[in-house]
Amino acid sequence: MHPRLTLALSLMEALAIFAYAISGFIEARKRRLDAVGMFLVAMASAFGGGTVRDVLLERRPFYWVEHQDYVIAIFGLSLFAPWLLKWATRLISERTLLVADAIGLGLFSISGTSLAIDAQLPWFTCVMMGVVTGVFGGVLRDVLCNEVPLILRDSRPYATCAFAGCCLYVLLARSSFDNVYSVLIATAFILLARLVTFRLDVRLPH
Amino acid sequence: MHPRLTLALSLMEALAIFAYAISGFIEARKRRLDAVGMFLVAMASAFGGGTVRDVLLERRPFYWVEHQDYVIAIFGLSLFAPWLLKWATRLISERTLLVADAIGLGLFSISGTSLAIDAQLPWFTCVMMGVVTGVFGGVLRDVLCNEVPLILRDSRPYATCAFAGCCLYVLLARSSFDNVYSVLIATAFILLARLVTFRLDVRLPH
Amino acid sequence: MHPRLTLALSLMEALAIFAYAISGFIEARKRRLDAVGMFLVAMASAFGGGTVRDVLLERRPFYWVEHQDYVIAIFGLSLFAPWLLKWATRLISERTLLVADAIGLGLFSISGTSLAIDAQLPWFTCVMMGVVTGVFGGVLRDVLCNEVPLILRDSRPYATCAFAGCCLYVLLARSSFDNVYSVLIATAFILLARLVTFRLDVRLPH
Repeated sequence: MHPRLTLALSLMEALAIFAYAISGFIEARKRRLDAVGMFLVAMASAFGGGTVRDVLLERRPFYWVEHQDYVIAIFGLSLFAPWLLKWATRLISERTLLVADAIGLGLFSISGTSLAIDAQLPWFTCVMMGVVTGVFGGVLRDVLCNEVPLILRDSRPYATCAFAGCCLYVLLARSSFDNVYSVLIATAFILLARLVTFRLDVRLPH
Repeated sequence: MHPRLTLALSLMEALAIFAYAISGFIEARKRRLDAVGMFLVAMASAFGGGTVRDVLLERRPFYWVEHQDYVIAIFGLSLFAPWLLKWATRLISERTLLVADAIGLGLFSISGTSLAIDAQLPWFTCVMMGVVTGVFGGVLRDVLCNEVPLILRDSRPYATCAFAGCCLYVLLARSSFDNVYSVLIATAFILLARLVTFRLDVRLPH
Repeated sequence: MHPRLTLALSLMEALAIFAYAISGFIEARKRRLDAVGMFLVAMASAFGGGTVRDVLLERRPFYWVEHQDYVIAIFGLSLFAPWLLKWATRLISERTLLVADAIGLGLFSISGTSLAIDAQLPWFTCVMMGVVTGVFGGVLRDVLCNEVPLILRDSRPYATCAFAGCCLYVLLARSSFDNVYSVLIATAFILLARLVTFRLDVRLPH
C-alpha cells in the first residue's frame, strides 16, 4: 500500500476511535458516572465491537492490547472527561462527531468483514462479523448504561448502512478487484450512506 | 441413527429455532424496534445460548456459521416481521408457540450437556452448560431489550425443567444406555416437564 | 509457599467467593427473583469477572469448572436464599460483608493481573485484566438485574482501588521482589484502600 494511504488510514482510524470513545463519554456523562465509569463505557464503545468479533473469531491479541497507547490516552481523557465534554461541545460541532463516527462505522465494519473473509467463513457470516464490529461497541455502551441499544431503537439507518457496505465489500473481494480499492470503495460507501440517509432523514419502517 | 429419526430431529430443531427467533420478534416488536433490531434480537434469542456455550467450551465453528441458511431465513423474516407477527397471531396459537419453545428448550439443553460431556467436563458443569444453552438466548434477548431476563423473573419452572432434564441425561449417559435413547428420553422429559408445570401453573417459591 | 500461608489464602478466597455470591443474592432478592434467578445472579457475581478474564486471555478450564464444589455449594444456598438472607442480616453485619467483599476485590484483582503478566501482556493491559477480574462480576450481576452497574454509578472508589493496587503489583512484579510478598502487599493495599476510603467517605469527582 502507498505510504501516504497508510498514513491517511491510520489517521482516520485514530479519529474514529476517539469519536466512538467520545460517544461513550457523552452517554456516561448523561448518567453522571464518575471517571472510572467514563473510562469503562468509553472503552466498551471504542473497542467493544472489535473485541466481540475477535472472541467470536478466536483472534488474539485484541486491538487494544496491541495498541496500548489508545487505552492510556482514553484513560487520560476520562480523568478530565467532564471538562473535556464542555470544551468539546464548544469546539467540536455535532456534525464533526457525526462524520467521525460514520468514518468509524465504515472502517471498523469493513475491517471486520475482511478478517472474517481471511478466516474463510461463509459470506453471510462475513457480513455479520462486519456489522458486529461496527455496531457492537454502541450496543455494549448502551447495555452498560441500562438503555435499549440505540441501534435497535433509532429508525435512521446505521447498522443497515454497515450491512449494505459489507455486502458490497464481499462482492468486490470476490471479484478480481485490487483489495486496497475494495476497502476504500466499501468504506466510502458506508460513510456516504450514513451521512446521506442522516441528512435526508431516511427512516426504516417499523 | 435411523434416517427417519435424524429427519424428525432436524425438523424439530428447525421448529425450535424459529420458535426462539419468533420470541425475539415478539419482544423486539413490543419495543417498536426496526428491522435491524428485529433481526439482532431474533438472532440473539435463537443462537445466543449455543454461542455462549461454544465460547465457554472453545468450540468452533458456531452453529449459525455452519447453518447459514437459518441466518438468512431469519434475516428475510425480520424484514417482514411486523406483518409476519400479525399473521402469526392469527395462524399460530399461543399454545403452538409454547410447545415449539419447549421442544427447543429440551433439544438445546440436552445438546449442550452432551457436548460438555464429550469435552469431559465435571458433571455439574455439564448440567450448567446444558441450562446455559437452553436459556441464555432468552437472557440475551431480554438484556438487549433492557428488561430483567424473563427466566429470572418468571416463577414458572423453565430453567428448572432444563436443569432436571440435564441431570437425568448425565445419569443416563453414565449408564450403559444407548445414547440415542438417552437423548430422546431426556429431551422428552424437559418438554413434558415444561408443558405439565405450565398447564398446572406450578410456581417456584420466591 | 509456606503451607499455613496457602491455607490462609484458600480460606480468604472461599470467604471472598461467598461474599460476592451473597451480593448476588441480595440484588436478586430485591428483584424478587426465584431460586434459579438467585443462583444465576450469584454465579455471575462470584465467577463472572474471572470468566470474562479467562475468555479474554483464552485460558481454560474456568475456575468454577475446576472448583465444582463452590458451584454446588452456591446452588445449595440459592435454594434457601430467602431464609439465608433473613438469617444473614441478623448474624452477619454489613461491615463483615464489606470486609469480605474488599478481600475479594483484592485477591481477584491481583490474581487477574498476575495471570496477565504470566501471559506476557503489556503492562496497562495487565492492570486492566486485574480490574476486570475484580469488578466484572458485579457488572454482570447488575446488567442481569437491569440496573446501571453499581461500580459505574457509585462515586466511592472501588474499581479505582483495584486499579491502584494492580499498578502497584505490576511495579512490584518488575522489581526483584519475592512474588509471594508482592501478592500479599498489593492485595492488602487494595483491601485497606477500599476500607479506608469507604470509612472516610471519599468520593470521586463526577
